[in-house]
Parts: sequence; C-alpha cells; structure tokens
Amino acid sequence: MKNSAYKRRRADFATWMAREGIAVAVFEDNERNRDPAVQYFTGHPCDAVLFITITGYGILCAWDDNLAAKADADIILPYTRFSLNPVMAGKYVIEKAGVPIHSKIEIPENTSYPGFLEYVNAFIDFDVICRKSGTSAAVESMRLVKDEEETALTRRACSIADGIASAIEKKIQAGQLKTESDVALFIEKEARLAGAEGTSFPTLAAGPSRSHMIHSYPPFGAGEFGTEGLSILDFGIKYNGYTSDMTLTFAAGALQPAQEKMISMVEKAYNEALELYKPGVSVREAALKADAVFARGRRKMPHGLGHGVGLAVHEAPFVRSRDTGEEPPVFQSGMIVTLEPGLYDPRYGGVRLENDVLITEEGNEVLTHSRIVRL
Amino acid sequence: MKNSAYKRRRADFATWMAREGIAVAVFEDNERNRDPAVQYFTGHPCDAVLFITITGYGILCAWDDNLAAKADADIILPYTRFSLNPVMAGKYVIEKAGVPIHSKIEIPENTSYPGFLEYVNAFIDFDVICRKSGTSAAVESMRLVKDEEETALTRRACSIADGIASAIEKKIQAGQLKTESDVALFIEKEARLAGAEGTSFPTLAAGPSRSHMIHSYPPFGAGEFGTEGLSILDFGIKYNGYTSDMTLTFAAGALQPAQEKMISMVEKAYNEALELYKPGVSVREAALKADAVFARGRRKMPHGLGHGVGLAVHEAPFVRSRDTGEEPPVFQSGMIVTLEPGLYDPRYGGVRLENDVLITEEGNEVLTHSRIVRL
Repeated sequence: MKNSAYKRRRADFATWMAREGIAVAVFEDNERNRDPAVQYFTGHPCDAVLFITITGYGILCAWDDNLAAKADADIILPYTRFSLNPVMAGKYVIEKAGVPIHSKIEIPENTSYPGFLEYVNAFIDFDVICRKSGTSAAVESMRLVKDEEETALTRRACSIADGIASAIEKKIQAGQLKTESDVALFIEKEARLAGAEGTSFPTLAAGPSRSHMIHSYPPFGAGEFGTEGLSILDFGIKYNGYTSDMTLTFAAGALQPAQEKMISMVEKAYNEALELYKPGVSVREAALKADAVFARGRRKMPHGLGHGVGLAVHEAPFVRSRDTGEEPPVFQSGMIVTLEPGLYDPRYGGVRLENDVLITEEGNEVLTHSRIVRL
Repeated sequence: MKNSAYKRRRADFATWMAREGIAVAVFEDNERNRDPAVQYFTGHPCDAVLFITITGYGILCAWDDNLAAKADADIILPYTRFSLNPVMAGKYVIEKAGVPIHSKIEIPENTSYPGFLEYVNAFIDFDVICRKSGTSAAVESMRLVKDEEETALTRRACSIADGIASAIEKKIQAGQLKTESDVALFIEKEARLAGAEGTSFPTLAAGPSRSHMIHSYPPFGAGEFGTEGLSILDFGIKYNGYTSDMTLTFAAGALQPAQEKMISMVEKAYNEALELYKPGVSVREAALKADAVFARGRRKMPHGLGHGVGLAVHEAPFVRSRDTGEEPPVFQSGMIVTLEPGLYDPRYGGVRLENDVLITEEGNEVLTHSRIVRL
C-alpha cells in the first residue's frame, strides 16, 4: 500500500482531534486487546502502541523492530525500551513532543480501570480522557467506508477465497476432501500458497450432524463433511490485513422437502435483501426484508443479516433488524458488508449463504461468489 | 472431569472471598477478553459471565445454551436473556440472590473504565471493586498448582503432542512433510483425530531462513522446513481445555561449528536448569543458571526460560532471571512449567528446546519429550 494513505488517514483523524480539542490520542494493540486502528494508521500489523498528535504526527512504539521497519509513522521507537508499558512510552513521547500541560490526552476506550488510574497518576498535569464514543468511535466511523487501497486489498482477499471455494467444490465431488478437517486444513494451506497471511477467523466446517448450530464448537473436527444432508462451510481469507468472509452450503443426496424449503427461503431472503444493499437505504430495512421472507415461512433467523469486513472480520456496520434504540446506519458507497441469511433446524440441519458486498454509487457489487452446492 | 472438582474449587475460592469480605465475584469470558476462570470454576469453555457468591454458589450465564448443559454450576441462565450484558445479568443475579446492600462486589480487573462506571451506576447501593491483586490474582494463585484432574488432562495434552512430534520426525525423514505449512497443518489434523480441541496456540514452524526469529510472523508459511540448517517447531495441544507446549529443533545437513556450539549450549542450559525445577527452589535461580551457561559462551537468551501451562498456554509462574522488584515465585509440587532455553543468530538460525515439566515432591517429571532431531 502507498505510504501516503497512512499519512492521509492520520491527517484526517487529526482534523477530528482538533475539533474535539484532543492533543494526543493513544491506540494500543496487544495480545489481550486487538485494535485495528494501529494497522489502519501505520500499516504495522500488531503488538504496538501508537500516539497521534493534533498535528497528525504519528509515533509508533513497536515490540518487533524488524516488522516495524515496514511501517509508516513519523517516528518509530522500540517498545521494549519502555518494557511494553504504554504509560512509560506515553511519558517519554508526551515530554519529547512538548505537549502543553492541561492538554487532553485520550486513551483507548477499553483501558482497564486500574490501567486508567495508572495513566491519571502518570499524567497528573494533563486531562486524561477514557470514554465511549471518543477516539474509538471516530476511527470506527472513518473505517466504515473503505478507501481505494482498502477496497483493492479486500477484493484480493475475496478473490482468493472464491478460488479456494471452487477448488473445494471440485475436490469434494472427486472424493478428495471427506472430513471437516480435510476441508478446513485445505483452506489453511491454499491461503498461504496464494500469498495470504492465512484465514481471517477459524474456519467453521460443520457436517450434516452439526450444521444446525450457528457456531459449532469446536469449529471443525474429524467428522464427515459433504455427506448426505446439509453441510455448512464458513471461512474467510486475510490478505495484507484485510479480510473476506463467505459461507457455502453443501446439499448432498435426496433432500427432504423441508430441507429444500429452507434452501429456497434462504435464497429468496438473500436476493430480496441484496436489492436493498445500496446507498441511502437503512441497514435495518434490509434486515427486516429478510425477516419478512422467513416469517412468511414461519421461520426466524437467529443471527444478524450482516456486518462490515475490513481490518477486522466483524466490524461496523452491523446489519440487524433488532431495534437498539439508536438510529440504524445507512448504506454508503464504499462500505463492504456481508449478506448472510441462514436457517437452522435440529431435524434438518442448517443452510447459510454469505457473500461480501461492496456498496457502489449505482447499487452494489458482490465480491465473493458463494452458492448452494448440490452434490 | 468429575463435577465435584468444580464445586470444590468454588468452595475454596469462597473461603478467600470470606476473608476479603467480598459478597459476589464476577468473571467474564468473551471474544475480546478471555478469562480461564470461567472454565476453571464451571467447566464451561467460553463466552459466559459467572457470578460466585460468598457461599460458593455459582451462577453461570452462558451464551450457548447447548454447550452450557455440560457445565457445572448451581444455576445456569441463558446470557441472551440479558443481551450479553454483564451488568444486566449482574442486576438480576444480585437481586435474586438477595445480596445485602453495601456489600462488596468485585468485578474483573480488566473491566474498562467506561464499563466500570456502568457497574458503579447500576450498583449504586453496593461497593463495586475493580483492582489489581484482587479476584484475578486469587484465582491465578489457585491455578498455580494443578489438582489431580488438571494434571491428568495436561498429561493427555502432552502425550498427544509427543505422539505427533514422533510422527512428524518420521514423515520429514520420509520426505512426506516438506514445508512449514505441511508440518503445521499435519499437527492440526492429527490433534483432532486424537480427540483434542486443536492446537493450544498457532503453530510456529520456522524453516532455516526464519528460525533465528523468536516468534516469526506469520507463524508458518509456504517456505521449506527441515532443509539444510536449523528449523524450529514450537506447538502445543489443547485437550479438554488443558494445554501442552513443546519446541523441537531440526538440524539438517553438515552443520557449521557455530551451529553445533549453539545446540550444545542449549542442551547444557536445559540439563542444568532442569535440576533446579524442584520444590522450594526460586524460579529465578533456575533462570539464572541457564543465563550463566549462555554467558560462558558469550551468548544471551532473548526471552524467559519458562512459564506455567494449564487452561492458558502462558500463565503463572513465569520463569525469568530479570529482577522485577517482586519476590520471585518458588517451584511447588503440582506446578506444570515449561523449560525452554533458546539461542538465535541471524547468521546461523535458531535453536530452542522446550518441554513441559511437572514439579513433584521428589523433584520433577518431564511430561513431553522434545529433542534436537538430526536429519
């Protein structure tokens, strides 16, 4: 990715900071708390603390020096110098940057209460802020609409997933992939051969005996996959940080009428909701459309209709019909959102169909090509 | 596992609560914050909030009802009833349990500052506590020494890993596993065939070109493994929640004298430190012993010598020579701790040897059987 993209994002964010009067914003990514903001603003994938100043200046303290050499930041420091302690790093950075006393320093929303007290004690001359709807929400809002670089990377993550899905279809038909773990591990291997980091979440491969569960645990096992009945395969690829997410259903043997009915309802819900994936439409409207299709068949979907994909595989906007009391988001050109209607029944198994949809000026473009595969 | 083990643990913990005057302790495990305490006290693996009262009564609110049917708790409620909100669940539980006002309610140490404020607002008539060295530390201290059930499960996780390591050695020699991803995906498959949930962390398979890095990123790729030079394989198994962790080094072809020297130093550090893995010895003493071996060869190990394994693959005690200002822990019978000396050099590659060691009354028992494999 062109480094200018990161600089531009930091500058855009600094504009928001200036409006809010925030002198320094702190972001941290570590094993316990992953925050894509660090990668969004610098390209550095993990394990670092990032300080952005009101002038858009980015100071990255990264655990792994070698990895950080590829990052885009105005200053890169070894995080080990501060014993991986964000407060220690912050003290150094804020002094060096000459941040005036009484300035507002906003720390991550998910900072623990004891951690918050450490910041407050260390920055006694500053105004330490930790809140909902602050920096985290501002970055989330920026990340809602993908820029050119992000869209290109997501397209690649989608196309790698598409290629693997097609190969799996052929291999199952040829009897070369027989179990859940055969399928899941084939994906892991092919993902890396295609130059991806790997999968974007643990592959869910649920054969006919388990496909009625929304999220089977463990996600895949030694059981049969693609044998008589309904099997679900939900997987995604991570390419240069960007994720795809798709779900195919494999229908094998002579299906029962109730199973055929579930499939046709899921396809209908998919097609009708897809027409509403376009700029200006509320995400809730699309979700209600799918609900209505299922309600006519006296069924109910036990999960949301979709979610954004990007640096995180589950991110805003969340496409739900449930009334949360807040104004639901509206589809905008540049969003990339899954559409994933599904039905589950302990007697018949599960059906889910999921694709990643780019919202465009004209409507939408479906980036992955999931389907109901007949075996 | 016998359910009585969970009940006993809750009762033991309640004894600590009574001493501290805590009426209710809250533990939460979710996608953002994993807390093994929930599984430790109930057997439920993930995605739940657990309340333990001063009488040892356990109330589990679990996201997945089906999964929770196997859990051990005095009351099990669907977490969805409370919209997966721990504060809402807490209000219900504390009212139903008739907890007297002004009682102390201790919430997880890693509760965010905004989350802490929500608790405080919801429990205005109670004393909400969120601190370091509180409930989290108390549970960590209980988990330091494994009970009979835990030791049995860890032994199984170790023996599955051992079996897979032997199979890998044979398959590499037979030319059937050639790349990092061949090896890593073979482990994923075999783990499940052996009845394990999977691996306990992403397998690190680093061929000769990358083995000099402590933690290569990505953990495995399409590159060669086991070819001329030094390759490192660091992996573990998760069996019924309990983890193993072992590292083998594969040395292929005619090694350079510097590489042979690294191997013999790592083996020497391993053997000398192992003698100090016994009850009553400070973990720091063991770590200093390994440091001394390396110092004599003018080398330095860039990571700690070991860590506990259990429901988490990295847990207390941490075996380090660094002086943290705190009294280092002492080995106790029943602890299960890795011993993993390693040396890394960009010119020659890396060598690491890691086993899981059970501390016994008499000294120790090594549960895994890693080695330097000559190819």
